[in-house]
Amino acid sequence: MGTIHRFNRQHGAFSWHDVGIKAYPGQESLHVTKRELISKRDGAQHFEVRYFEVQPGGYTSLDTHQHDHGVVVLRGSGTVLLAEKTFAITFGDVVYIEPFEKHQFHNAGKEPLGFLCVIPPKP
Amino acid sequence: MGTIHRFNRQHGAFSWHDVGIKAYPGQESLHVTKRELISKRDGAQHFEVRYFEVQPGGYTSLDTHQHDHGVVVLRGSGTVLLAEKTFAITFGDVVYIEPFEKHQFHNAGKEPLGFLCVIPPKP
Repeated sequence: MGTIHRFNRQHGAFSWHDVGIKAYPGQESLHVTKRELISKRDGAQHFEVRYFEVQPGGYTSLDTHQHDHGVVVLRGSGTVLLAEKTFAITFGDVVYIEPFEKHQFHNAGKEPLGFLCVIPPKP
Repeated sequence: MGTIHRFNRQHGAFSWHDVGIKAYPGQESLHVTKRELISKRDGAQHFEVRYFEVQPGGYTSLDTHQHDHGVVVLRGSGTVLLAEKTFAITFGDVVYIEPFEKHQFHNAGKEPLGFLCVIPPKP
Protein backbone atom coordinates (compact mmCIF):
# COMPACT_ATOMS: atom_id res chain seq x y z
CA MET A 1 0.00 0.00 0.00
CA GLY A 2 1.00 3.62 -0.34
CA THR A 3 2.36 5.54 2.60
CA ILE A 4 1.66 8.81 4.39
CA HIS A 5 4.38 10.80 6.12
CA ARG A 6 2.70 13.26 8.42
CA PHE A 7 3.98 16.77 8.74
CA ASN A 8 4.86 17.62 12.32
CA ARG A 9 2.80 20.58 13.45
CA GLN A 10 3.90 20.58 17.06
CA HIS A 11 6.43 23.38 16.71
CA GLY A 12 7.66 25.91 14.20
CA ALA A 13 10.29 23.67 12.62
CA PHE A 14 9.52 21.68 9.46
CA SER A 15 9.74 17.97 10.13
CA TRP A 16 7.82 14.79 9.39
CA HIS A 17 6.98 11.75 11.47
CA ASP A 18 9.08 8.74 10.47
CA VAL A 19 11.40 10.82 8.26
CA GLY A 20 14.87 11.31 9.68
CA ILE A 21 17.65 13.69 8.69
CA LYS A 22 20.07 12.22 6.14
CA ALA A 23 23.75 12.98 5.79
CA TYR A 24 24.52 15.97 3.60
CA PRO A 25 28.07 16.73 2.41
CA GLY A 26 29.58 19.34 4.68
CA GLN A 27 26.34 19.40 6.65
CA GLU A 28 27.76 21.06 9.74
CA SER A 29 29.67 23.79 8.01
CA LEU A 30 27.01 24.52 5.37
CA HIS A 31 24.01 24.54 7.75
CA VAL A 32 21.91 22.31 5.52
CA THR A 33 19.63 19.42 6.44
CA LYS A 34 18.21 16.86 4.03
CA ARG A 35 15.17 14.61 4.40
CA GLU A 36 14.01 11.94 1.97
CA LEU A 37 10.22 12.32 1.97
CA ILE A 38 9.54 9.79 -0.80
CA SER A 39 12.16 7.26 -1.84
CA LYS A 40 12.74 3.57 -2.48
CA ARG A 41 11.92 3.07 1.21
CA ASP A 42 8.31 3.79 0.20
CA GLY A 43 8.57 1.57 -2.86
CA ALA A 44 9.02 4.54 -5.22
CA GLN A 45 11.03 3.35 -8.23
CA HIS A 46 10.65 6.34 -10.56
CA PHE A 47 11.46 9.46 -8.55
CA GLU A 48 12.53 10.76 -5.16
CA VAL A 49 11.10 13.74 -3.29
CA ARG A 50 13.45 15.31 -0.74
CA TYR A 51 13.18 18.33 1.56
CA PHE A 52 16.23 20.53 2.13
CA GLU A 53 16.48 23.24 4.70
CA VAL A 54 19.22 25.86 4.64
CA GLN A 55 19.74 27.96 7.76
CA PRO A 56 20.38 31.74 7.51
CA GLY A 57 23.86 32.27 6.10
CA GLY A 58 24.05 28.70 4.84
CA TYR A 59 24.26 27.30 1.33
CA THR A 60 24.11 24.00 -0.52
CA SER A 61 27.19 22.59 -2.20
CA LEU A 62 28.05 23.92 -5.65
CA ASP A 63 26.85 21.01 -7.78
CA THR A 64 27.05 19.88 -11.39
CA HIS A 65 25.78 16.37 -12.17
CA GLN A 66 23.86 14.25 -14.60
CA HIS A 67 20.50 14.15 -12.81
CA ASP A 68 18.09 17.04 -13.07
CA HIS A 69 16.15 18.69 -10.22
CA GLY A 70 12.62 19.94 -9.76
CA VAL A 71 12.44 22.42 -6.88
CA VAL A 72 9.51 24.11 -5.09
CA VAL A 73 10.23 26.56 -2.26
CA LEU A 74 8.17 25.84 0.89
CA ARG A 75 9.49 28.43 3.35
CA GLY A 76 11.83 31.38 3.64
CA SER A 77 13.69 33.07 0.83
CA GLY A 78 17.13 33.08 -0.72
CA THR A 79 18.85 32.74 -4.05
CA VAL A 80 19.61 30.03 -6.55
CA LEU A 81 22.59 30.05 -8.87
CA LEU A 82 21.73 28.55 -12.27
CA ALA A 83 24.76 28.24 -14.53
CA GLU A 84 26.20 31.78 -14.19
CA LYS A 85 23.09 33.69 -13.09
CA THR A 86 21.64 34.21 -9.61
CA PHE A 87 17.89 34.46 -9.02
CA ALA A 88 15.94 35.44 -5.91
CA ILE A 89 13.50 32.75 -4.75
CA THR A 90 10.78 32.64 -2.12
CA PHE A 91 7.67 30.64 -1.16
CA GLY A 92 6.01 28.88 -4.08
CA ASP A 93 8.69 29.59 -6.66
CA VAL A 94 9.46 26.65 -8.93
CA VAL A 95 12.94 25.94 -10.32
CA TYR A 96 13.88 23.38 -12.94
CA ILE A 97 17.61 22.58 -13.02
CA GLU A 98 18.79 20.81 -16.16
CA PRO A 99 21.24 17.90 -16.24
CA PHE A 100 24.83 19.15 -15.87
CA GLU A 101 23.72 22.66 -14.99
CA LYS A 102 25.79 24.24 -12.24
CA HIS A 103 23.59 25.17 -9.28
CA GLN A 104 23.73 26.29 -5.68
CA PHE A 105 21.19 27.58 -3.14
CA HIS A 106 21.99 30.35 -0.64
CA ASN A 107 19.99 31.60 2.30
CA ALA A 108 20.60 35.31 2.74
CA GLY A 109 17.43 35.78 4.81
CA LYS A 110 16.63 35.61 8.50
CA GLU A 111 14.50 32.47 8.57
CA PRO A 112 15.23 28.97 7.24
CA LEU A 113 15.02 28.46 3.47
CA GLY A 114 13.19 25.18 2.86
CA PHE A 115 12.47 23.57 -0.48
CA LEU A 116 11.27 20.32 -2.00
CA CYS A 117 13.61 18.77 -4.56
CA VAL A 118 12.57 16.03 -6.96
CA ILE A 119 15.15 13.81 -8.67
CA PRO A 120 15.04 10.75 -10.92
CA PRO A 121 15.76 7.46 -9.15
CA LYS A 122 19.34 6.79 -8.14
CA PRO A 123 20.96 3.94 -10.06
CA MET B 1 19.25 26.64 -19.22
CA GLY B 2 16.96 25.76 -16.37
CA THR B 3 13.76 27.67 -15.79
CA ILE B 4 12.04 29.50 -12.95
CA HIS B 5 8.27 29.72 -12.65
CA ARG B 6 7.48 32.49 -10.22
CA PHE B 7 4.71 32.08 -7.71
CA ASN B 8 2.13 34.82 -8.03
CA ARG B 9 1.89 36.68 -4.76
CA GLN B 10 -0.49 39.37 -5.89
CA HIS B 11 -3.61 37.81 -4.41
CA GLY B 12 -4.70 34.95 -2.22
CA ALA B 13 -5.04 32.39 -5.00
CA PHE B 14 -2.18 30.03 -5.82
CA SER B 15 -0.90 30.63 -9.35
CA TRP B 16 2.37 30.93 -11.22
CA HIS B 17 3.53 33.25 -13.96
CA ASP B 18 3.71 31.46 -17.31
CA VAL B 19 1.88 28.38 -16.01
CA GLY B 20 -1.65 28.00 -17.32
CA ILE B 21 -4.52 25.80 -16.20
CA LYS B 22 -4.66 22.47 -18.01
CA ALA B 23 -7.72 20.42 -18.81
CA TYR B 24 -8.78 18.06 -16.06
CA PRO B 25 -11.42 15.34 -16.64
CA GLY B 26 -14.77 16.60 -15.41
CA GLN B 27 -13.08 19.84 -14.39
CA GLU B 28 -16.25 21.89 -14.09
CA SER B 29 -18.27 19.38 -12.15
CA LEU B 30 -15.43 18.25 -9.90
CA HIS B 31 -14.10 21.74 -9.06
CA VAL B 32 -10.49 20.79 -9.73
CA THR B 33 -7.75 22.73 -11.51
CA LYS B 34 -4.44 21.32 -12.72
CA ARG B 35 -1.18 23.12 -13.49
CA GLU B 36 1.97 21.58 -14.90
CA LEU B 37 4.75 23.32 -12.98
CA ILE B 38 7.62 21.25 -14.40
CA SER B 39 7.19 19.17 -17.53
CA LYS B 40 8.72 18.42 -20.92
CA ARG B 41 8.03 22.08 -21.72
CA ASP B 42 10.96 22.86 -19.38
CA GLY B 43 13.06 20.08 -20.86
CA ALA B 44 12.32 17.71 -17.97
CA GLN B 45 12.57 14.14 -19.27
CA HIS B 46 12.47 12.17 -16.02
CA PHE B 47 9.54 13.50 -13.99
CA GLU B 48 6.68 15.97 -13.95
CA VAL B 49 5.62 18.22 -11.07
CA ARG B 50 2.01 19.34 -11.16
CA TYR B 51 -0.17 21.43 -8.82
CA PHE B 52 -3.79 20.47 -8.26
CA GLU B 53 -6.33 22.56 -6.46
CA VAL B 54 -9.65 21.17 -5.28
CA GLN B 55 -12.34 23.62 -4.23
CA PRO B 56 -14.49 23.03 -1.13
CA GLY B 57 -16.87 20.15 -1.83
CA GLY B 58 -14.80 19.04 -4.83
CA TYR B 59 -12.85 15.87 -5.49
CA THR B 60 -10.44 14.39 -7.98
CA SER B 61 -11.49 11.52 -10.20
CA LEU B 62 -11.31 8.01 -8.71
CA ASP B 63 -8.14 6.76 -10.38
CA THR B 64 -6.24 3.50 -10.76
CA HIS B 65 -3.31 3.47 -13.19
CA GLN B 66 0.21 2.27 -13.78
CA HIS B 67 2.11 5.42 -12.82
CA ASP B 68 2.76 6.21 -9.18
CA HIS B 69 2.31 9.59 -7.46
CA GLY B 70 4.30 11.60 -4.95
CA VAL B 71 2.08 14.19 -3.24
CA VAL B 72 2.84 17.08 -0.87
CA VAL B 73 -0.05 19.20 0.46
CA LEU B 74 0.54 22.95 0.09
CA ARG B 75 -2.69 24.45 1.36
CA GLY B 76 -6.01 23.55 2.94
CA SER B 77 -7.07 20.16 4.18
CA GLY B 78 -9.11 17.20 3.04
CA THR B 79 -8.89 13.46 2.67
CA VAL B 80 -7.17 10.96 0.42
CA LEU B 81 -8.54 7.52 -0.36
CA LEU B 82 -5.74 4.96 -0.68
CA ALA B 83 -7.00 1.56 -1.79
CA GLU B 84 -9.91 1.08 0.67
CA LYS B 85 -8.84 3.45 3.46
CA THR B 86 -9.40 7.19 3.87
CA PHE B 87 -6.85 9.46 5.55
CA ALA B 88 -7.09 13.08 6.64
CA ILE B 89 -4.43 15.32 5.06
CA THR B 90 -3.36 18.90 5.58
CA PHE B 91 -0.41 21.25 4.95
CA GLY B 92 2.92 19.48 4.66
CA ASP B 93 1.59 15.93 4.65
CA VAL B 94 3.31 13.64 2.16
CA VAL B 95 1.52 10.82 0.33
CA TYR B 96 3.06 8.14 -1.82
CA ILE B 97 0.55 6.36 -4.08
CA GLU B 98 1.77 3.08 -5.54
CA PRO B 99 1.25 1.94 -9.12
CA PHE B 100 -2.27 0.58 -9.62
CA GLU B 101 -3.42 1.77 -6.20
CA LYS B 102 -6.93 3.20 -6.21
CA HIS B 103 -6.88 6.82 -5.03
CA GLN B 104 -9.02 9.94 -4.79
CA PHE B 105 -8.71 13.32 -3.07
CA HIS B 106 -11.67 15.09 -1.46
CA ASN B 107 -11.92 18.59 -0.06
CA ALA B 108 -14.31 18.60 2.88
CA GLY B 109 -12.91 21.87 4.23
CA LYS B 110 -13.76 25.53 3.72
CA GLU B 111 -10.67 26.66 1.79
CA PRO B 112 -9.07 25.22 -1.35
CA LEU B 113 -7.08 22.00 -0.98
CA GLY B 114 -3.87 22.41 -2.99
CA PHE B 115 -1.15 19.82 -3.48
CA LEU B 116 1.91 19.12 -5.55
CA CYS B 117 1.87 15.81 -7.42
CA VAL B 118 4.98 14.22 -8.95
CA ILE B 119 4.71 11.57 -11.66
CA PRO B 120 7.17 9.71 -13.88
CA PRO B 121 7.39 11.02 -17.46
CA LYS B 122 4.47 10.29 -19.74
CA PRO B 123 5.30 7.89 -22.58
